[in-house]
Amino acid sequence: MKKEVYYSEYLKLESILQAQELESVKNQHPAHDEMLFIVTHQTLELWMKQIHFEIDSILQEFAKPYLPDATLSVIHHRLQRIVEIQKLMTSHFTVLETMTPLDFLDFRDDLIPASGFQSLQFKQLECKLGIYQRHQSSTKAYSQQSLHKEDQSRIDENTMTLFQGVQTWLERNPFLESKEYQFESSYKNALDLMFEKEKTLIQNHPFLDDEQRKKETVNVELMKDKFKDLFESENGDATQGKLSRKALLSALFINLYRDYPMIHTPFQVLRSLIELDQMHVAWKHKHLSMVRKMIGLKMGTGGSSGQKYLSESIEASSIFSDLVSLPSYLVSRQNIPVLPESISKQLGFRWV
Amino acid sequence: MKKEVYYSEYLKLESILQAQELESVKNQHPAHDEMLFIVTHQTLELWMKQIHFEIDSILQEFAKPYLPDATLSVIHHRLQRIVEIQKLMTSHFTVLETMTPLDFLDFRDDLIPASGFQSLQFKQLECKLGIYQRHQSSTKAYSQQSLHKEDQSRIDENTMTLFQGVQTWLERNPFLESKEYQFESSYKNALDLMFEKEKTLIQNHPFLDDEQRKKETVNVELMKDKFKDLFESENGDATQGKLSRKALLSALFINLYRDYPMIHTPFQVLRSLIELDQMHVAWKHKHLSMVRKMIGLKMGTGGSSGQKYLSESIEASSIFSDLVSLPSYLVSRQNIPVLPESISKQLGFRWV
Amino acid sequence: MKKEVYYSEYLKLESILQAQELESVKNQHPAHDEMLFIVTHQTLELWMKQIHFEIDSILQEFAKPYLPDATLSVIHHRLQRIVEIQKLMTSHFTVLETMTPLDFLDFRDDLIPASGFQSLQFKQLECKLGIYQRHQSSTKAYSQQSLHKEDQSRIDENTMTLFQGVQTWLERNPFLESKEYQFESSYKNALDLMFEKEKTLIQNHPFLDDEQRKKETVNVELMKDKFKDLFESENGDATQGKLSRKALLSALFINLYRDYPMIHTPFQVLRSLIELDQMHVAWKHKHLSMVRKMIGLKMGTGGSSGQKYLSESIEASSIFSDLVSLPSYLVSRQNIPVLPESISKQLGFRWV
Amino acid sequence: MKKEVYYSEYLKLESILQAQELESVKNQHPAHDEMLFIVTHQTLELWMKQIHFEIDSILQEFAKPYLPDATLSVIHHRLQRIVEIQKLMTSHFTVLETMTPLDFLDFRDDLIPASGFQSLQFKQLECKLGIYQRHQSSTKAYSQQSLHKEDQSRIDENTMTLFQGVQTWLERNPFLESKEYQFESSYKNALDLMFEKEKTLIQNHPFLDDEQRKKETVNVELMKDKFKDLFESENGDATQGKLSRKALLSALFINLYRDYPMIHTPFQVLRSLIELDQMHVAWKHKHLSMVRKMIGLKMGTGGSSGQKYLSESIEASSIFSDLVSLPSYLVSRQNIPVLPESISKQLGFRWV
Repeated sequence: MKKEVYYSEYLKLESILQAQELESVKNQHPAHDEMLFIVTHQTLELWMKQIHFEIDSILQEFAKPYLPDATLSVIHHRLQRIVEIQKLMTSHFTVLETMTPLDFLDFRDDLIPASGFQSLQFKQLECKLGIYQRHQSSTKAYSQQSLHKEDQSRIDENTMTLFQGVQTWLERNPFLESKEYQFESSYKNALDLMFEKEKTLIQNHPFLDDEQRKKETVNVELMKDKFKDLFESENGDATQGKLSRKALLSALFINLYRDYPMIHTPFQVLRSLIELDQMHVAWKHKHLSMVRKMIGLKMGTGGSSGQKYLSESIEASSIFSDLVSLPSYLVSRQNIPVLPESISKQLGFRWV
Repeated sequence: MKKEVYYSEYLKLESILQAQELESVKNQHPAHDEMLFIVTHQTLELWMKQIHFEIDSILQEFAKPYLPDATLSVIHHRLQRIVEIQKLMTSHFTVLETMTPLDFLDFRDDLIPASGFQSLQFKQLECKLGIYQRHQSSTKAYSQQSLHKEDQSRIDENTMTLFQGVQTWLERNPFLESKEYQFESSYKNALDLMFEKEKTLIQNHPFLDDEQRKKETVNVELMKDKFKDLFESENGDATQGKLSRKALLSALFINLYRDYPMIHTPFQVLRSLIELDQMHVAWKHKHLSMVRKMIGLKMGTGGSSGQKYLSESIEASSIFSDLVSLPSYLVSRQNIPVLPESISKQLGFRWV
Repeated sequence: MKKEVYYSEYLKLESILQAQELESVKNQHPAHDEMLFIVTHQTLELWMKQIHFEIDSILQEFAKPYLPDATLSVIHHRLQRIVEIQKLMTSHFTVLETMTPLDFLDFRDDLIPASGFQSLQFKQLECKLGIYQRHQSSTKAYSQQSLHKEDQSRIDENTMTLFQGVQTWLERNPFLESKEYQFESSYKNALDLMFEKEKTLIQNHPFLDDEQRKKETVNVELMKDKFKDLFESENGDATQGKLSRKALLSALFINLYRDYPMIHTPFQVLRSLIELDQMHVAWKHKHLSMVRKMIGLKMGTGGSSGQKYLSESIEASSIFSDLVSLPSYLVSRQNIPVLPESISKQLGFRWV
Repeated sequence: MKKEVYYSEYLKLESILQAQELESVKNQHPAHDEMLFIVTHQTLELWMKQIHFEIDSILQEFAKPYLPDATLSVIHHRLQRIVEIQKLMTSHFTVLETMTPLDFLDFRDDLIPASGFQSLQFKQLECKLGIYQRHQSSTKAYSQQSLHKEDQSRIDENTMTLFQGVQTWLERNPFLESKEYQFESSYKNALDLMFEKEKTLIQNHPFLDDEQRKKETVNVELMKDKFKDLFESENGDATQGKLSRKALLSALFINLYRDYPMIHTPFQVLRSLIELDQMHVAWKHKHLSMVRKMIGLKMGTGGSSGQKYLSESIEASSIFSDLVSLPSYLVSRQNIPVLPESISKQLGFRWV
């Protein structure tokens, strides 16, 4: 017969609540705040495990050839959960910051050479999101750096990433092209109108002098060029965080026609991905600002000028920068091309 | 030679990250959300361990015969840390609530008869704060309820509580009485004036009819009576959450004369205690509201009508209700009795 | 020609930023914290205006005979916005609480007899949500209380409420009944099975003694009875916050079959309504706890024992208590009755 | 006789609640979300007014020749209030972001050429904090940019700034030097020891190869040089955000000896200043990230490539970067030089 479930056994509290061994105690000069340091990192690692668990389940669905709406809805739900976890993780710093720099110095030397750079789960996570892929040459080293041998082998930079999963799903959009209809050309026209309108705005803007007018006009031309690239580069480039042309067109389509029932959930998924992206960057910002407060310019316990690395890597940490920049290419509602009935009908419910 | 510290070994991640064993998996119908359920409870337990750690260190200081300002300042700092942890714990529900009632039903039956009522650390915590003491007869049962034998013996209702520590510290205030000065009688006069002023306000209030006037006047008399009790009951009553007369007078003194350097830290300590108190109540409220959303009127997995108990116990969960009610007895600044110089001088810095 | 838009004119900052006139200044004893008091209340009033604006737009849609999915989606979006505003409003207290009770006493008497009970927008809001309707006899007085004549006439308790709008929309659900299918009877069977299962759980629960077993069994019977009421009372009772039988069945249907594309948005709307409801209650809780901290047992500036009223009215402030209690009546996924194909097909997209 | 105070008159709600005039309505194509846009900006402006009010009161105290502890304590309290307001202001974006880019496009063109760059209060605030002073040549233009003539004259870059107030206060520290004691030389020795210890850590760090070792050693030398600058530049440079030598030494002293009663409040003031500083930067980050989401690369309504300016100015927005970088120069507790009794005694209370 099955054993009765008991709270503390179910949660394995015995091992969890006894996993706090202070180095400062071992080294015989107990530092009170080391306990907080350990508990904060342990809870953060637990939450990272949960994020891995959710992303794995999402990747599994993205890998399938077909995504029914109910499943997409579950994916959206899980992405939202990840975002909530990210927010929670970010608020951990508020607690950790009740430790002052002097308090930290009480045990900082005891930790050397351990460091947050050795968090396997964090490296695996950035890998799974698709961040490392982006600069494969330069980050190979980083993703391995500071890790013990057996941990190094646990980072597999060749598995499917969230970036790839999303791209593949977007590319499957069947509504971009039909005999009678081409989303691409139809939207290009709308966009050309928008660019013209922007130029007129600039010409008539009362605060701009001639130089600024020129600068802003050049800016519009740059946007046009950038948009062209969207159409001309076929395959995207995961190593640059660049989605394929078809995936981007699909994302644009979803942004514009989100009011159709069938586009509703895809639009929510895109919104969640952007939130997840921004929360990841925000987390790293907040982390850096805490490290700065804590050690100033000193060397990190792991032996590198942690701050410098952190600060440089943050900018490269946006996963879906292409999605984030889409608003540049939105035309206002009244200028969105009307879909042909053959397509608009398919995007609705069977019931009327 | 000392072994090199390695992040994952330091944090004992191996045992922590493998401590998630889903009952639904054991019972061969995997429920995705059980992982979130486990991780949330594990992190909450880790944070409770941290709160215990901080409170233990605080109680140790309160137990000493003398508290230098530097130590009091550390106590304040740690109380603030606890408050931040409580806020963090409360936001855990936002994450847990991404699990819908239907999701929970997928594994609810697997957990029976385990339940949150079996959290030893939570029971120990309420005990240490001084909450159980308050209704010793009725809660004896509760503090033991649902626990395995060996856990029952781990709850010691006779150790020093935060309530007692604070009371003892407050009672030590040496400035309440001297040959020439009696805080009590001096403040009583100020207060009598305030009560008279309140009555005048009521008499002249344009919105009150005769009945309301009578009611509000009775209310003032009640406040007066309540305040009298403060002065007349000598020893307080821990089982009622009632501080001793001297401790309360001391708290009042601190509230009024907080601007003196020497009273600065004590005042901050009192503020933190009230925050801690209110966050504890808020946590239980939030917990109840989550349980309601999750199971409605169904029986809790632990076998009791959880909601009913929770809802009843929340009101009794305020630890420092006496401190919380002090604002009723504050007179406005211009009416605070001036301290005799013999005392006010002592409350300042040596340096001028 | 149209005048150029200028930031400060557009926002009418001149009048807004000069609308802070301190009574304590008029009465010639300036109290620093009165400025914070005024600004906090002014921003709260601005946010209430925004909530009114959103709810009005929602009510307008609910009043129409037909709600296309795109509109429902907009409603969901606006409800979520209201929830975010409610959260923001709740955090205003954190700022206001940087004012201590002594600080408040510096100008409290200057405000008499003004008080928060005179907030017309708040009374109109509770009216619009459907809260006053609920106890029409007793609250008539309250909704008018403390207001000047011209303001009293601005509260119209007869306009459509959010409660009514939601009920009417829910009742329109066309999928509850067809020739071959009756949701009500089909679900009743599933539910009876659940109740039987609950009883078995209780019988076998290892922690329950005979008395508890009896109590919990009675509890199940009560749930059964309550559920019966759902089916037997036809019209609901707005004055009791009770939805009509058909509306509740519809809400249950939506909770169970939310994975169908067509039910997706309705389910999200229900979730948002519950959030809005709980945030409203949470706001009042937080408000009460702040008032307690600030004045203790003293009379409110408006002349009534504010706390007592507040505390009593909070419990009655849940608008959609029927929706909140629905989880009691959810069966687990594997026990949800399968929909006949004639219906399930209609709930999907046209495209496959 | 004084007129009775009435809530809506007291708060001037009539003018405040009627100050929302939608341009899209004037231009006859009502855009629902413009109301949210207006209300958000109006509440933000109200909160800025409150911050001005608090800072003005703080500057007034800093301008006085002597700051008693009670006043310093009030300053600390008001700084904390500002920080809470900043946090609240930052959460306004969460509400504003419920407006999607398409929603914004519905009325974006109506606003041209108005823009947030025209917020007089914001420019005055950055001026008052001491940010513009820093790059006087380059920002002169900016602080005036986009403003109407009469507003331009309202920005006075010559008034006392918070930066100056803090510096003057810090410089007044009387404990840095006496006949028998020199904080500067005493601390320099402690620091040299620390730098040596850092070098040893680097030499023995197991993860560093020779190149990294060299790099990190150079880093220590850089810190030493930087610290020397602290001692050698006498007057600081407000235009570079650089505190004077004496002010910085004083801040260091406060960080090290904060446990002495008399240093307690000064230390809390420094902590609040850093928080205020970081929240200001965080606010601008969050603002930028919202603008990015909303308009992508398009021109801001005010006619400039808003994003570029914003992004560049954020880095220069730290007011107290010198204070923020102090942790680099903290030695651990056991290495802090012991104060001579003549000084340590003065830092305590009169009472023992």
